[in-house]
Amino acid sequence: MFEEIIEFIKSLYPNQNPVPLHAPVFLGKEKEYLLDCIDSTYVSYVGKYVNRFEKMTAEYTDAKYAIAVVNGTVALQIALQLAGVKYGEEVITQPLTFVATPNAISHCGAKPVFIDVDLDTLGMSPEKLEDWLKKNTKYNQSTKRTINQSTNHSVSAIVPMHTFGFPCRIDGIVEVANKYNIPVIEDAAESLGSFYKGKHTGNFGLAGILSYNGNKTITTGGGGMIITDDEQLAVKAKHITTTAKIPHPYEFVHDEVAYNYRMPNINAAIGVSQMENIDLIINNKRETALLYKEFFSNRDIEFIFENQYSKANYWLNSILLKDYSLRNKFLIFANSNNVQCRPAWVLMTKLKMFSDCIKGDIFNALQLEERLINLPSSLRVPNH
Amino acid sequence: MFEEIIEFIKSLYPNQNPVPLHAPVFLGKEKEYLLDCIDSTYVSYVGKYVNRFEKMTAEYTDAKYAIAVVNGTVALQIALQLAGVKYGEEVITQPLTFVATPNAISHCGAKPVFIDVDLDTLGMSPEKLEDWLKKNTKYNQSTKRTINQSTNHSVSAIVPMHTFGFPCRIDGIVEVANKYNIPVIEDAAESLGSFYKGKHTGNFGLAGILSYNGNKTITTGGGGMIITDDEQLAVKAKHITTTAKIPHPYEFVHDEVAYNYRMPNINAAIGVSQMENIDLIINNKRETALLYKEFFSNRDIEFIFENQYSKANYWLNSILLKDYSLRNKFLIFANSNNVQCRPAWVLMTKLKMFSDCIKGDIFNALQLEERLINLPSSLRVPNH
Repeated sequence: MFEEIIEFIKSLYPNQNPVPLHAPVFLGKEKEYLLDCIDSTYVSYVGKYVNRFEKMTAEYTDAKYAIAVVNGTVALQIALQLAGVKYGEEVITQPLTFVATPNAISHCGAKPVFIDVDLDTLGMSPEKLEDWLKKNTKYNQSTKRTINQSTNHSVSAIVPMHTFGFPCRIDGIVEVANKYNIPVIEDAAESLGSFYKGKHTGNFGLAGILSYNGNKTITTGGGGMIITDDEQLAVKAKHITTTAKIPHPYEFVHDEVAYNYRMPNINAAIGVSQMENIDLIINNKRETALLYKEFFSNRDIEFIFENQYSKANYWLNSILLKDYSLRNKFLIFANSNNVQCRPAWVLMTKLKMFSDCIKGDIFNALQLEERLINLPSSLRVPNH
Repeated sequence: MFEEIIEFIKSLYPNQNPVPLHAPVFLGKEKEYLLDCIDSTYVSYVGKYVNRFEKMTAEYTDAKYAIAVVNGTVALQIALQLAGVKYGEEVITQPLTFVATPNAISHCGAKPVFIDVDLDTLGMSPEKLEDWLKKNTKYNQSTKRTINQSTNHSVSAIVPMHTFGFPCRIDGIVEVANKYNIPVIEDAAESLGSFYKGKHTGNFGLAGILSYNGNKTITTGGGGMIITDDEQLAVKAKHITTTAKIPHPYEFVHDEVAYNYRMPNINAAIGVSQMENIDLIINNKRETALLYKEFFSNRDIEFIFENQYSKANYWLNSILLKDYSLRNKFLIFANSNNVQCRPAWVLMTKLKMFSDCIKGDIFNALQLEERLINLPSSLRVPNH
């Protein structure tokens, strides 16, 4: 059976050896825009491409504001800080995620709390979230904050993640969060082009973040974006990611501790070109997903498919094998046959720096970690 | 007199209107390398240009190790963290610097302490540093740490800055720091190509940092570098700026809270090309400085010149006018005549977020703030 899967994947990407898990494809005006940047000398923090990239992203995601930064991790850190997360507080996220999620929480000086995911969406379970909050926290009426009773710390944000591009039950999560007056920041690093109930992921909570790392659906080399409908948060995000300088023709006055996290124009130039092809890219990836689905449906292997409310970008196509032993055998077989496959991340709760963090039951995440495999999912383009 | 200065500056940059303070010039293979990045698809965190840029920088600065990151601010933050700076501690720096210096200190959770600069070098005064340490701290023999007696916090690093590319008395600073067992991290963001007693700036303390912002001597769009001779610090810096992933063909295990601060390959591609011309760039800037020097020497205006131990990159040529009122008049005149001049930064001690920080006497910094003006200093190239 392994041979058959590998042959199928090779047939999807006939000109690639090895077949990468996810390699960027540059179909548009990337080169033209890069040369234009050099000719204009605007390669750094000022320039038309950054503004254009932000505008295109806001339009595509239907967010009111988009703020481009150097990567998804700092986008999440800044969004959390602006949501009010402070040193010593707690932020709820899921154990099945890339390490950037709990890292960004740590960069705020906060501690992650890990709540299980749903088996079908791979994202945070609204039921388990509510159950944990009910059993472990108390709402303080006077401060309007939810307090973890075992630590006495404020639970100051919730960060669900749209794993591998599959939207989680974000409406349910926001509903629970609202009951406890906790802001939701969506980690949509992997889900540009994924929609839930017709609305782009990242747009359900107070803010969302996107990532443009080289292995993502579109890339800027390295980059990230904060999207939000909240004007105050947007203005503040732009301000503190650009050294908090007060506008003046020549004086340098800055009014708060801030960051140099602005995306350079040269990176945004690539992003603009990639966004010009976003529909083509998402459609192409969804077609590949259908081919995978058909292939696996005939072979009694579970292929993760979007649920009825979702339209996924299929950033990384994913299957579930029977158990951990089979998973490992397949990973070794695939990679030694020049087809790059990888497992889900080792759960955050198992990494030594997060092993002492509070967690709910993580039964589903454990199952997925043992059984899930990501398959090659790059754009399929003739002669690439 | 103002007219004469403006005419002179315009004669230095005959094809530019307005004359920018410092604009990047791309003389080399920037375009070729960018196109190569796109063709190779290696635009992100893996790729030959990052490694080559690090190697060229290590060779040029004669540091044993160089680690490329997304900007100078995070380079400083990481270097400070690896020097052992922790939440709640104190870090000594100078009041005359760009806001990135105290920001990076704050990002470690530490508080800046401001020590005055020397009038000739514009950088931290070793005498005032020693004086402050003598009067305000006590060395704890058992912990081997220097403690600020008024706050009871550890003074855990010293960050001198080579202002506008002029080397400070870094050997004297390191000597004082060694007496108190405090590590020195040099902020050499502005001094790529500046040497002190024959040794490149950034190489005197435990580590140094460089910046490649668009307005710097060379640029990568946005970028920074940590340079050090300390192998352990270098290995750790690479590790925690690249998510602290343990090498494995497919498993994702990370062994500490870490960052996504790696410079993308696409930015490094520009850096490599710029470094290929570094000697030409520095010589060209030094020639411009000599022209400025000659011009001002005949006009009784103080032009900041390298001292006998220094070879400066003249990142920003600088003059001292008689007083604050004349400074302001000149700034308004120059900028309204399309010649971009700017004052020194408003001192860090005057910014509201650092106004409660401890400081020594800052007599020299106050003088420089009132009188100093930066003059246009871009590369002078025919037809640019």
